[in-house]
Amino acid sequence: MKKVFSEEILQERIKKLQKRMLEGGISAALIKQNVDLFYFSGTMQDSYLLVPAEGEAVLMVRRNTERVREESGLKNIISIKSMRQIPALAHAFGCRFNSLGIESDVLPAKMYLFLQGLFPNVKLQDISQDIRIVRSIKDPLEIAWMRHAAAQLDQVMKKVPEFLVPGMTELELAAELEYRLRLAGHQGYMRMRTWNQEIHFGHVLSGPDGAVPSYFLGTTGGIGMPGFSHGASEKEILPGEPLSIDFGGCVNGYMIDQTRMFALGSLPEELKKAFDAVMEIHYGLRKLIKVGETCGSVYEWATEKAAQKGYGDYFLGFGDSKMEFVGHGIGLEVDELPVLSKGNMMLLEPGMVFAVEPKFIFPGVGHIGIEDTCLLTESGLEPITVSYDGLTILNS
Amino acid sequence: MKKVFSEEILQERIKKLQKRMLEGGISAALIKQNVDLFYFSGTMQDSYLLVPAEGEAVLMVRRNTERVREESGLKNIISIKSMRQIPALAHAFGCRFNSLGIESDVLPAKMYLFLQGLFPNVKLQDISQDIRIVRSIKDPLEIAWMRHAAAQLDQVMKKVPEFLVPGMTELELAAELEYRLRLAGHQGYMRMRTWNQEIHFGHVLSGPDGAVPSYFLGTTGGIGMPGFSHGASEKEILPGEPLSIDFGGCVNGYMIDQTRMFALGSLPEELKKAFDAVMEIHYGLRKLIKVGETCGSVYEWATEKAAQKGYGDYFLGFGDSKMEFVGHGIGLEVDELPVLSKGNMMLLEPGMVFAVEPKFIFPGVGHIGIEDTCLLTESGLEPITVSYDGLTILNS
Repeated sequence: MKKVFSEEILQERIKKLQKRMLEGGISAALIKQNVDLFYFSGTMQDSYLLVPAEGEAVLMVRRNTERVREESGLKNIISIKSMRQIPALAHAFGCRFNSLGIESDVLPAKMYLFLQGLFPNVKLQDISQDIRIVRSIKDPLEIAWMRHAAAQLDQVMKKVPEFLVPGMTELELAAELEYRLRLAGHQGYMRMRTWNQEIHFGHVLSGPDGAVPSYFLGTTGGIGMPGFSHGASEKEILPGEPLSIDFGGCVNGYMIDQTRMFALGSLPEELKKAFDAVMEIHYGLRKLIKVGETCGSVYEWATEKAAQKGYGDYFLGFGDSKMEFVGHGIGLEVDELPVLSKGNMMLLEPGMVFAVEPKFIFPGVGHIGIEDTCLLTESGLEPITVSYDGLTILNS
Repeated sequence: MKKVFSEEILQERIKKLQKRMLEGGISAALIKQNVDLFYFSGTMQDSYLLVPAEGEAVLMVRRNTERVREESGLKNIISIKSMRQIPALAHAFGCRFNSLGIESDVLPAKMYLFLQGLFPNVKLQDISQDIRIVRSIKDPLEIAWMRHAAAQLDQVMKKVPEFLVPGMTELELAAELEYRLRLAGHQGYMRMRTWNQEIHFGHVLSGPDGAVPSYFLGTTGGIGMPGFSHGASEKEILPGEPLSIDFGGCVNGYMIDQTRMFALGSLPEELKKAFDAVMEIHYGLRKLIKVGETCGSVYEWATEKAAQKGYGDYFLGFGDSKMEFVGHGIGLEVDELPVLSKGNMMLLEPGMVFAVEPKFIFPGVGHIGIEDTCLLTESGLEPITVSYDGLTILNS
């Protein structure tokens, strides 16, 4: 086991959070969710990270301290047997607080009520938005790993023409992709922060399946399988249908997200036209998105552009199942900040990494779309996902 | 899309919950978690299932009603735009309550607080234990699917000798297993209810990796990968090491869990001896476990037996990382009831399905263990997992 993040990187991240805590009047934070723990401590072993608004953070480890000392770049590490020790330990460490920041968006109600019992005179405050904002600006190491994740997925996507054969089901194609990704070092499990949301590598959707909405909070869903009702199904991929592969690469927990379109043999002219339109919006977004823009203005521009081109009804979904975002932050979770959503006043900042995904959903026919994960810098939007092939029509 | 559960099955399940609600004085329940929704309504699309203690349940669908009507065996289905409509709709449906059962073990704090705001004069009560108890008794359809899941995994495990080759890494072996499972119809994603717990198909662990504890709340952990630090790692599988494959099959959301041991070339005599001891405990448990036993007594018997055989220090973990359960319920989630844990007074009932997994952890060496998913009937414990091969030593 090695330390994934140096002490310097971790302290830098903690300081950013502390700055926000001071501004927001939160005197301490208790971090427990796996991904937040990994980000701020370098380990996701069973621990609690107590972060005072000023001073040094303490990592309280329930299981297993030896492993945590190997994995974490932090030095202030102590063993505990139970959460019940936290109030006394915080006191012993000189950490005084009347408000405690917690991850209310993910922490279960039962644990919240238990914490409130542990700290009867402390106001529990949601600090998840602050954590997510800090995490939305990627440091050079994170960006490097996301580039590796993009290369990992790219090397697999390049081989699609070798293993995509007529008669294959969506599930079989997904299995081929997943297998190669695992051999290339993909950790398999991809994380979503939003409760009740789940994904398995991504979506392989063909023909009408590409237009079926699901509980997955994305523009695309799909029939999926009885117990996991989105993504690849046992439907056969037919010639002449739009086929989309919306998949994620992953390196050291860091993911990227991209969508590429394929067709076996041919694709109807009106869908090729739709693809050209989607690409025009996509390249338009690439130029438009700049530091200082609001997330909402990006969404507005894209929806207006789609309407102008005559695709207003189909953009980002259809009918009741329309989505109101054209992109989403990504990193350790698939659903990070910023979200390029309707009315969202969040400003885009340098160092943000997000997937831009204009897509048209045609009920009964399928979807046509594109997605690239991009890094925002002072000089504009730079794709992290590589080897853009647009729409690939394979001779069957 | 088809209805996975008939109306009859769903109403039967809802009635069981209502019986517990009446006994526990909970006048209504609001079910939202994916798996609970799937179990009680047959769909996991974005919906809320309102269950009065008496009378008919209402499925309120946020997205997408058309799909829910296709998937759900329930008839009482209405569309809503927002959670805010729930109080008025409940009232309109004649559902009066001063206490509302919610899934406090999984529902995020933020949503809990929002619900409390929606129902200011209602006492929110944790109903998760009632739901989990109802779900712990499997009906014939669930058992049939779990048998299919066992056969699915078995057909892949039988081929291990064909694709396990010296020089392979744990990750490569895991990729081979996962690939074949996906082709056999495994949905890929395996669910855990416990917050912050996650699994990807299972664990492939070799040599010392098999004794490394992790944040995964199981007897085994492993080094895993930097961003997913349990399960298969990039460690090469060496001759003479204990190799365990602890994997899950999955059909229609229903999982089974089994562990089988392998070694390339040979295994040291003391580990073979340990394997014989683990099997003696396993067969002992198979005979001992009967309807009416407490979970705790099963655990006690196993730990005593392990101590008698001289493996007390290594049973179910080592040192601070020792676990206090020798088996766990399984079905739609890997961590269902019952848990065969220390001091647990829950009585074992017919229809319960759980994995029994006695394992020894030898620090620096690896682990030796076995695991079968079994169904409890009036006549005793019956394995669901098939084709038991014990320990397989492959010529390298």
